[in-house]
Amino acid sequence: MRMYDVIERKRDGYELTDEEIDFFVTGYVNGSIPDYQASALCMAIFFQGMTARETARLTMDMMHSGDVVDLSPIPGIKVDKHSTGGVGDKTTLAVVPIVASCGVPVAKMSGRGLGHTGGTLDKLESIPGLSVDISRDDFFDIVKTCGCAVVGQTGNLVPADKRLYALRDVTATVNSVPLIASSIMSKKLAAGCDAIVLDVKCGSGAFMKTYDDAVKLAQAMVAIGEEVGRTTVALISDMDQPLGAKVGNTLEVIEACQVLRREAPVDITETCIELAANMLTLAGKGTLEACRTLARTQIANGAAFEKLCQMVEAQGGDTSVLYDYMRFDQATHTRQVRAPRSGFVYAMQTERVGTASAALGAGRETIDADIDFSAGIDLARKTGDAVAAGDVLATLFSSSEKRLDEGERILLSAYDIRDERPAPHRHFLARVDASGVELLG
Amino acid sequence: MRMYDVIERKRDGYELTDEEIDFFVTGYVNGSIPDYQASALCMAIFFQGMTARETARLTMDMMHSGDVVDLSPIPGIKVDKHSTGGVGDKTTLAVVPIVASCGVPVAKMSGRGLGHTGGTLDKLESIPGLSVDISRDDFFDIVKTCGCAVVGQTGNLVPADKRLYALRDVTATVNSVPLIASSIMSKKLAAGCDAIVLDVKCGSGAFMKTYDDAVKLAQAMVAIGEEVGRTTVALISDMDQPLGAKVGNTLEVIEACQVLRREAPVDITETCIELAANMLTLAGKGTLEACRTLARTQIANGAAFEKLCQMVEAQGGDTSVLYDYMRFDQATHTRQVRAPRSGFVYAMQTERVGTASAALGAGRETIDADIDFSAGIDLARKTGDAVAAGDVLATLFSSSEKRLDEGERILLSAYDIRDERPAPHRHFLARVDASGVELLG
Repeated sequence: MRMYDVIERKRDGYELTDEEIDFFVTGYVNGSIPDYQASALCMAIFFQGMTARETARLTMDMMHSGDVVDLSPIPGIKVDKHSTGGVGDKTTLAVVPIVASCGVPVAKMSGRGLGHTGGTLDKLESIPGLSVDISRDDFFDIVKTCGCAVVGQTGNLVPADKRLYALRDVTATVNSVPLIASSIMSKKLAAGCDAIVLDVKCGSGAFMKTYDDAVKLAQAMVAIGEEVGRTTVALISDMDQPLGAKVGNTLEVIEACQVLRREAPVDITETCIELAANMLTLAGKGTLEACRTLARTQIANGAAFEKLCQMVEAQGGDTSVLYDYMRFDQATHTRQVRAPRSGFVYAMQTERVGTASAALGAGRETIDADIDFSAGIDLARKTGDAVAAGDVLATLFSSSEKRLDEGERILLSAYDIRDERPAPHRHFLARVDASGVELLG
Repeated sequence: MRMYDVIERKRDGYELTDEEIDFFVTGYVNGSIPDYQASALCMAIFFQGMTARETARLTMDMMHSGDVVDLSPIPGIKVDKHSTGGVGDKTTLAVVPIVASCGVPVAKMSGRGLGHTGGTLDKLESIPGLSVDISRDDFFDIVKTCGCAVVGQTGNLVPADKRLYALRDVTATVNSVPLIASSIMSKKLAAGCDAIVLDVKCGSGAFMKTYDDAVKLAQAMVAIGEEVGRTTVALISDMDQPLGAKVGNTLEVIEACQVLRREAPVDITETCIELAANMLTLAGKGTLEACRTLARTQIANGAAFEKLCQMVEAQGGDTSVLYDYMRFDQATHTRQVRAPRSGFVYAMQTERVGTASAALGAGRETIDADIDFSAGIDLARKTGDAVAAGDVLATLFSSSEKRLDEGERILLSAYDIRDERPAPHRHFLARVDASGVELLG
């Protein structure tokens, strides 16, 4: 078999055989297929797409290119959750304890932030003492005793995706539904879960700019799950504004605690309940409606917050900060950003809010840059809110006046204030599973 | 500027700016743009195409990536000729002397054969003593004194195309009209001519399998010529069977001599006259019809053959072989291939005839393989001819029985013999210039 013929067949719109896809993934990982052929194939896939069968085969091949975690030593149905990356998305920090407090084990591997999106590991590390670099054995032990753990990747997971994603990132071939779907799903499957809840975001802060594209991506991932026998559900959510009020690391841990203590805004709280309920129903805890009630109960009775504290303690973290947020390291500089005019917040450029947060020090531009955990943004006004000129739109936290200047400039450009009030906002737009697309709200 | 953005814009169907195309060619030649980005761009161009302006800019940038030959020391209008590669195409060997015998100088650089297509340099080198490795000064001197010369490439011409073509060849991105057009035209323009006659072949032995594709390629090249101020004319010719009766190196030199001595078949003779007439009219020698007559006259009065002999002598060759073909080195082994059934030659797989010739020893599989000049095929039957079972279809020439076996096997598979007679064959199908497409014949 020659890679040339594989590229040519995809270029000409043919469906690749299993053998051709195996040949590509194996050869690309072992170095016998060079980057310039892989990028040509990715561009051909961008234009010609892949069938559900091709996408599933690519996913499985990438999954098997490295270690596959065996979660069977942990009893029960393990459900994983994945978000396609957003701004202010701290849901993992609240959803994992909710689900675990219902007796469903969650053994979760998360990632770090890059560019305008945050990462769960960075947020967790803003808790003093907490470690996410935990051995496989300790990871399993914590899940068995405490019910949940959120750690960094252990072992050599999906090296094919690491290499291919880095290549796609510099050849304008990221934005292809089968390639995104196989990248996400290969990592989820390698992490060993039995079922998966996906949060596929669309809007100005997300990979998928439109609802239709998000549905296509969701359907592709659900189809992969079907092909490989792992029940997969995707929620389509709106990223036309940040999730919740807080963006940053310490700030998002605080907001997650607020969700679990019934102190948080409705939008972020309901989002966490919906995600948790979908995970719980996949774990066999009843109908979706029953699981929503269950999740609410675990928040109301304090069990979910208690589970978060147990997990933080098991991972070596100082839980006192979760009860008293002032015990977190505090930013040295703060500034209130005020509305330049009166009206309604008509829209927000979510990506710019993330970029503003990164400029304040909360994100990293390169993979090994340091993060300022205390930096970030607390949004006082979001889409739909009325403002008068001079009202506080947001409070910025950073380590220097210069960073505040930059953050303020970017954040102001994210707000679109008009005389008219926008249409009401819904967070979850649809739910996609093997039976089809269900519109929500 | 970032290469990522250039790829993305082309991927999304935008027209690239001059600056973007300059950035790509410069960066690719100096090594700052890696192969994997160049191949992604080529695949995006395969799908999205290029406008006439983009194609012309790419051509000029590639042309200027290396040396550009200055033919101005040679007086007169210099017209070049290019064929997109065929089987049995010995036209250069006859056309160049015809044109030069009319007082129009021809300073021609040619290439070598690879795979199933032959190369003019290889054919010329089958003449004992003849050299095609000639310095720039000697090349010009020969053209000035003798009127024509056919040599190998001198200097570092179009390094951008060398690198890009090698990449396209392994990434399934050769077959793109703007990329083929810019590759051919950049080399022609770098060779310094004032006007160009292109022979664009279509059919089973050619790059372009269909007439429509050949017309598109011809129009793209004519448009480039217009954009850069070099009059360009393209003839669309049929490669559904080999050109003339002979395929090989010595054999094709012999057939070129036969053309100039009125001993050759009509198809190859008329092809050479048509190409020469188009070159002559671009050089200001009168109307196309007048130039056809002029070309015929120069053959009839012996001036064209005499010019070939002068050129061969100027390049160090032994002209006695041109008068007495038996003085060429003769193949040690010959075989007659006979028709397996009666009927008509309904069609020929031209590419297989070329492959058969290469298998006999006339071609090379790799760039530095040796060639057996005496090897090749003399076709006794071509498309449209009647045959009886056992009639000679062709005579094979080679250096071993084993090669004859292989050549016979391949050549027989090239013949499609049926009971019905095919529609009559036309060689030139259309003529494309700046004013449009004119159907011929």
